[in-house]
Amino acid sequence: MTLTGTMLIGQHSIPGSREAIRAINPATNLALEPAYAGGTAEHVEHACALAWSAFDNYRETPLAARAEFLETIANEIEALGDELIERAMAETGLPRPRIQGERGRTCQQLRTFARTVRAGEWLDVRVDTAQPDRQPLPRSDLRQRHIPLGPVAVFGASNFPLAFSVAGGDTASALAAGCPVIVKAHGAHPGTSELVGRAVARAAQQCGLPEGVFSLLYGSGREVGIALVCDPRIKAVGFTGSRSGGIALCQAAQARPEPIPVYAEMSSINPVYLFPAALSARGEALAQGFVASLTQGAGQFCTNPGLVIAVAGQALDHFVGTAANLLRYSTAQTMLTPGIFKAYEDGVSALTRHAQLAGTGLPAEGPNQGQAHLFVTQARDFLANHSLQAEIFGAASLIVQCANVDEVRRVSEHLEGQLTATLHLDDDDLATARALLPTLERKAGRLLVNGWPTGVEVCDAMVHGGPFPATSDSRTTSVGTAAILRFLRPVCYQDFPDSLLPTALQHGNPLLLRRLLDGQREA
Amino acid sequence: MTLTGTMLIGQHSIPGSREAIRAINPATNLALEPAYAGGTAEHVEHACALAWSAFDNYRETPLAARAEFLETIANEIEALGDELIERAMAETGLPRPRIQGERGRTCQQLRTFARTVRAGEWLDVRVDTAQPDRQPLPRSDLRQRHIPLGPVAVFGASNFPLAFSVAGGDTASALAAGCPVIVKAHGAHPGTSELVGRAVARAAQQCGLPEGVFSLLYGSGREVGIALVCDPRIKAVGFTGSRSGGIALCQAAQARPEPIPVYAEMSSINPVYLFPAALSARGEALAQGFVASLTQGAGQFCTNPGLVIAVAGQALDHFVGTAANLLRYSTAQTMLTPGIFKAYEDGVSALTRHAQLAGTGLPAEGPNQGQAHLFVTQARDFLANHSLQAEIFGAASLIVQCANVDEVRRVSEHLEGQLTATLHLDDDDLATARALLPTLERKAGRLLVNGWPTGVEVCDAMVHGGPFPATSDSRTTSVGTAAILRFLRPVCYQDFPDSLLPTALQHGNPLLLRRLLDGQREA
Repeated sequence: MTLTGTMLIGQHSIPGSREAIRAINPATNLALEPAYAGGTAEHVEHACALAWSAFDNYRETPLAARAEFLETIANEIEALGDELIERAMAETGLPRPRIQGERGRTCQQLRTFARTVRAGEWLDVRVDTAQPDRQPLPRSDLRQRHIPLGPVAVFGASNFPLAFSVAGGDTASALAAGCPVIVKAHGAHPGTSELVGRAVARAAQQCGLPEGVFSLLYGSGREVGIALVCDPRIKAVGFTGSRSGGIALCQAAQARPEPIPVYAEMSSINPVYLFPAALSARGEALAQGFVASLTQGAGQFCTNPGLVIAVAGQALDHFVGTAANLLRYSTAQTMLTPGIFKAYEDGVSALTRHAQLAGTGLPAEGPNQGQAHLFVTQARDFLANHSLQAEIFGAASLIVQCANVDEVRRVSEHLEGQLTATLHLDDDDLATARALLPTLERKAGRLLVNGWPTGVEVCDAMVHGGPFPATSDSRTTSVGTAAILRFLRPVCYQDFPDSLLPTALQHGNPLLLRRLLDGQREA
Repeated sequence: MTLTGTMLIGQHSIPGSREAIRAINPATNLALEPAYAGGTAEHVEHACALAWSAFDNYRETPLAARAEFLETIANEIEALGDELIERAMAETGLPRPRIQGERGRTCQQLRTFARTVRAGEWLDVRVDTAQPDRQPLPRSDLRQRHIPLGPVAVFGASNFPLAFSVAGGDTASALAAGCPVIVKAHGAHPGTSELVGRAVARAAQQCGLPEGVFSLLYGSGREVGIALVCDPRIKAVGFTGSRSGGIALCQAAQARPEPIPVYAEMSSINPVYLFPAALSARGEALAQGFVASLTQGAGQFCTNPGLVIAVAGQALDHFVGTAANLLRYSTAQTMLTPGIFKAYEDGVSALTRHAQLAGTGLPAEGPNQGQAHLFVTQARDFLANHSLQAEIFGAASLIVQCANVDEVRRVSEHLEGQLTATLHLDDDDLATARALLPTLERKAGRLLVNGWPTGVEVCDAMVHGGPFPATSDSRTTSVGTAAILRFLRPVCYQDFPDSLLPTALQHGNPLLLRRLLDGQREA
């Protein structure tokens, strides 16, 4: 397939007319063809009109048909073959196994949502049957199901060009919910976006769906993105990226005549706790695991362990020393974009002014290569300087040395909201960990014991979310099947004749759903 | 019990020091004793500190203990006996049977949430067990439950001094979720608020709960309310009231360093559709039902039928004539407060300038009595003048005459978000109604056939919510058991040893929950 450099509005290839974006191969700093001219407000208008016209139809597609659409997208992505892998590698600097793995994850994610759609639990069907003889007043027949919110605008992430981009988690869960999707492509991987976007459009066509169910827009500045978020036909927003970008979208969404929800995953430094017994017993193994997690993928994960918290002492000194030694052999890795590399360098240099450098990785040998950095600070300094909590996107981490367990608790209470918190503990640490747990539950969406936060499973129980500023809405997750719930709202039908009820609510329960029927869950 | 005129911060009676509020008996315009001096920022600080200190304890109370607390509140409210009924009547002008019925509803609501707490479905427990041998990577053990957001600020409504006030739906659902509650009492019924607030505090004491689980503050201006919403320890807000009030709270909540969700139920005109066959067959019965719903409780319901939409013609003329005739015998009823009465008069007089008056009820015979009003307009005028959609809180309604069914659809698409939409139809109307349904589902939270929107059942399937401006968050309901979901967020526990897991997630499933276990719902 030849990349065209055009947008995709429904089934139509539409060239933009604004300033073009062009992917940069971060390993060479060379621009990649083709150029992607940016869209205008008119293109947004066109895509939104199509999405809106598709909505009432798409949202009532049978569950099986919608599931098949998601599966067809996965098939079409796989059918792109090596062209997708090579383009994504060139646009991101990420190595082949990582991109191949991410493709697998993306397709598995689509198929997982297909299963979720078919199971229908997300409809949350509740039925309270009529009680005509109830005193003092009869009760009506009341039935509740969930319907999708409406067309959704998705802003993909730079660091997951497949799994969190055009056909990533936000798109998959919104389509699963019954929402048409308009993606604003991330400027760092426009070619990857086009390939995947065309795969989605082909799937829509094969499944006989209205073309407005999916569009893909490009734009170099904020024009397209803000126009999308402000269009009255857009009813929710999914975003993964920077804190400033997420907050800007939230503010735009709140300033609309009709405010809409924004699911922005923004920033997290993912504290890792090394409890005393574990640290004493296996400091070296912990240091190895830590350095591997820190440097994986050049540290470009939202769950990267950017903060380590432990009680000061010999065991911690040994951990720091071991980690610093291991880091010394860690090669600098190409980062996703020149802009991300520069932000990393700036973040590291700011941190150098406030914390003590404990170790670095090997220096860069090519353009945009991030050198790993490990810093140490004291709890009292961490508590006094809020800037030490700023996320540095890349392989940098800060170790906070606490005087005692009570200071560990104070540091924890002082933390902003996080995606994850990790506890390394042995049996002798259980009481200490248990005492800290209420704080960590209030601070993070996922708590791990004796693992590392990088690596986010796509499953029912996953929570990839957390209190602000980790996300803009702690009530949800952006990874895992519960992500579908973000794009739904309940509607109640009172005293409807059976023939007018949506299938999910009909008396005969034709979808065989496990309804909440008169207060009892059906088996 | 003697009313004290003091606030309740935990178990302590604290007198305010700001300008006092004093209830006015709207039937007499006379002020009622005692005066309630307003709280200050320091009182807010004190209540929030107590609530915060209670949170980690209260949120881990066993489900049975929390349910018992809700039931004890209901018992304590009933134990207030006639003093509560008489005070509420004096403060609201509402008749005895209405207040007695509302007390019953309030206590039933608390007991319903007690059952919901015990059943534990709101925990939404999901378990994905470890797959150590999975290729290419093993899967961790992942377990999800929901935990409460944190202390909640509740702003009660004027029109339901019991069911939507101090121990009403917002408080009951927040306490059920495990959130401490701080109520800002509505200025219209401070004595009723004190009586109920002390009942809640007694219940907390009897159940051995930390005192910070509940506080009750007073304030005449916005100082207390805004300070509450802006306090960093408050994590969600429940509000029922005006659109301007709700939007102000949303903006304050969004402007916080950590934005929080606001569940504001604001304004709705609740369109009623009279489809042709039904209108022809039983116009008079429809007019009777309509006038009864319109004038019930002086029209002071958020689900009051403020808009009627039908195709013009003889049948509609007959409906309007019958309704106007019936209205002529409808007595003016005392409204809740002098301010609400004045706003009603202003709203009616504004509508008089833009629509044709079709009928009125009997004139007032005492202070603050609202005279019912029925107006008629043409669809083209309704479409051209957005102000015709403004809610008039009280017994006023506007009939929109449409040229044909297509114009009915255009008027419907033009509507703002609503709590309800009602369809009066016969068999011959089914096709027309079915065609309109997608629009109505997008516009409203509850759809009714051949009923009237006033009267909101507290049950599992109820949705008392809807798209903006009906509420600030269409993804939820403020009435019914699903209201508990507003105050929860998911947390995932990865590879936790059983002894460190919360009870709900332990391997033996000691709470006997119907978990989602490896993708399958347990029976």
